[in-house]
Amino acid sequence: MRAEILAVGSELLDPSRVETNAVHITRQLLELGVEVGARIVVADDLALLQSAFHTAWSRADLVISTGGLGPTEDDLTREAAAAALGRALVREQRLVDELVQRFARYGRVMAAVNEKQADVIEGATVLPNRRGSAPGQWLESGGRLLFLLPGPPAEMVPMFEEQVLPVVRAHAGDSVIRRRIVRIAGMGESDVEQIVAPVYRAYTNPRTTILGGASEVELQLVAQASTEAEAEERIEALAAALRDVLPGRIHSEDGRGLHEVVADLLTERKLKLALAESCTGGMLAETLTSVPGASAFLDRACVAYSNAAKVDLLGVDPALIEAQGAVSEEVARAMAEGVRLRSGADVAVAITGIAGPGGGTPDKPVGLVFIAIAGAAGDRVRRLHLIGARDRVRRQACVIAMEMIRRGLLGLSAQ
Amino acid sequence: MRAEILAVGSELLDPSRVETNAVHITRQLLELGVEVGARIVVADDLALLQSAFHTAWSRADLVISTGGLGPTEDDLTREAAAAALGRALVREQRLVDELVQRFARYGRVMAAVNEKQADVIEGATVLPNRRGSAPGQWLESGGRLLFLLPGPPAEMVPMFEEQVLPVVRAHAGDSVIRRRIVRIAGMGESDVEQIVAPVYRAYTNPRTTILGGASEVELQLVAQASTEAEAEERIEALAAALRDVLPGRIHSEDGRGLHEVVADLLTERKLKLALAESCTGGMLAETLTSVPGASAFLDRACVAYSNAAKVDLLGVDPALIEAQGAVSEEVARAMAEGVRLRSGADVAVAITGIAGPGGGTPDKPVGLVFIAIAGAAGDRVRRLHLIGARDRVRRQACVIAMEMIRRGLLGLSAQ
Repeated sequence: MRAEILAVGSELLDPSRVETNAVHITRQLLELGVEVGARIVVADDLALLQSAFHTAWSRADLVISTGGLGPTEDDLTREAAAAALGRALVREQRLVDELVQRFARYGRVMAAVNEKQADVIEGATVLPNRRGSAPGQWLESGGRLLFLLPGPPAEMVPMFEEQVLPVVRAHAGDSVIRRRIVRIAGMGESDVEQIVAPVYRAYTNPRTTILGGASEVELQLVAQASTEAEAEERIEALAAALRDVLPGRIHSEDGRGLHEVVADLLTERKLKLALAESCTGGMLAETLTSVPGASAFLDRACVAYSNAAKVDLLGVDPALIEAQGAVSEEVARAMAEGVRLRSGADVAVAITGIAGPGGGTPDKPVGLVFIAIAGAAGDRVRRLHLIGARDRVRRQACVIAMEMIRRGLLGLSAQ
Repeated sequence: MRAEILAVGSELLDPSRVETNAVHITRQLLELGVEVGARIVVADDLALLQSAFHTAWSRADLVISTGGLGPTEDDLTREAAAAALGRALVREQRLVDELVQRFARYGRVMAAVNEKQADVIEGATVLPNRRGSAPGQWLESGGRLLFLLPGPPAEMVPMFEEQVLPVVRAHAGDSVIRRRIVRIAGMGESDVEQIVAPVYRAYTNPRTTILGGASEVELQLVAQASTEAEAEERIEALAAALRDVLPGRIHSEDGRGLHEVVADLLTERKLKLALAESCTGGMLAETLTSVPGASAFLDRACVAYSNAAKVDLLGVDPALIEAQGAVSEEVARAMAEGVRLRSGADVAVAITGIAGPGGGTPDKPVGLVFIAIAGAAGDRVRRLHLIGARDRVRRQACVIAMEMIRRGLLGLSAQ
């Protein structure tokens, strides 16, 4: 079963507004195993709305709209949906009477414009609204479902949960959805894709989506089954196949980011970490200390931006900087050793490089970064040529440094 | 002129994801006077995507898509858009060569899957992507415009601003739009709103939008006029009125963030900065070093997370930490003085606090942060009770520290 959601209202297109109804519905549908193919925010414009309903109805098994059911001129959802389905709108006298009574209960006389809230698409069933004046409605046609729900979340959410979900559940069958995110760091998206595509393409359930970031790749696996156990089994089968083709490369299947995995490894093993950062300027420290409880493993980070700071803070030999340059394998190694010795930490990591946009030379171009680790996670240096703007170079350097710590601690190969 | 925006990617339908590209584009188009009729998030499904392009193209004068231009099997935007317009997709050898060179420049061999990024819709013009491998493309047909842009915001935003906006502006007609962002730090949104609302409400042109962040507030002023001079005059009239009610509080009207303003002040005055961070864990250093050329003013940052590091790196007296606690006015002051003395920098800043979620006590609750500055920007300590989760507490502390540096350098009152 595939759904599309229409969020109706020009105000929802305001860039300072956050649309919440469609997101809420997406979440609830996913749990029923109903996939959402598109989420559409549409302005209050009859032609546009009619076209949006028409298109969604032609593609999806389930169309849910929110908003546009009020009494004003801008409220056009009923008209648009009826026209898109080629059905008439019928004013239900019973609903008009209820609206009049509702106003009377609050000591008010109903303005005539409110009567349009009693218009129902031919063949549709009314969804009573206990929290507002605009009722919803739904219909089934050729196995497909259409729901029109009010826009205010305080009315929409209970109506959706009490009156829509049971109908959708009955139509969707008993299927269960399970998702897992498989994370890989230190490899480019296309390199991962090359390796995993032949594997995941053999599966249609789970479905796999691949997402790339700065030296990070996420594989989202979504399985559908009739029981939780079966869904879990399907996910695990594909995950195991991915582990086979990417041995030691997957750092997380449980939602944790690489920084959390590294923080947990260090904390569990009661190891102290010290950092010496140059071009990343504190980004690695900031990333690792974003994990609550980071004081359990992080002793210090020295952002040694100037050469003087590299000498003072880390004990790097000024002659070495002079001879090799601050961005060099030798200085990276000396920075890591220096911060380890001075802090007494178990593991030390140093990063030195040229983040750009300035500072590059033919010999040492922008994107050249050296990362050294020293101590309990092994002694290694990597030379990298990172691609992208300043922030991306810095971010990649941090990801690769964390992956080096992880691999070192787990006794995996250097890269 | 009416636009529709397609945000392509199954991951964007994940209820935990926030889609930012389409919102960013909506904001920029609104400023050109281009109305957005619909914003559509679509899954990576060829039939669905093709239908979405077909429908949007049939309704709008301007269709902009983001995402789906990468090298993987899920990247289907090119194919879908071409099919929707009934045009062929042509592989451009020049682009293939550029991709191969791009990989070679970084010493890598291009995987074959990347070649599809060189596919261009017949009649479309390529939009070069300096920040990533996927180029964009655009075409005009019967007065309508179609743009396909990459998904990563770091690539999409500059491509949109540099290559798309000028074309749209040329098509959108002659009214001139001017915007200015007025930035204030260290005050809450409601405090700023209280002061500025009576001022900006008196103006309908410029329109003012107020946006609040962690101890940062942005006022966006947008004026529309028939000439640049008139638009600029309208903006300046309101900006001057805002400066009157917020004396010394506005740090930027030229687009720079507070970190850039502080970086520029230090660089212009040839002052060296040294940082001592505890709870912010390197975030202040990372923020200031995100500015290119930060080596001109940043000497070092010591992330002294453990008490031992505070003693070793900053020379804080262990007896002082014992007596007052690491989170105290006295220790903050000693950290700032220590890093200033040891580095010889002109200005020093220290931050110590409890970012949470753990570590709070009745005396020293989560959110308690001390910030000390020492040296050429004055000697001051502030005690703050910051509200929010770990990241928000850390971010606010950094903003307030930077505002303290700025106010100190400009000789403004302490807060």
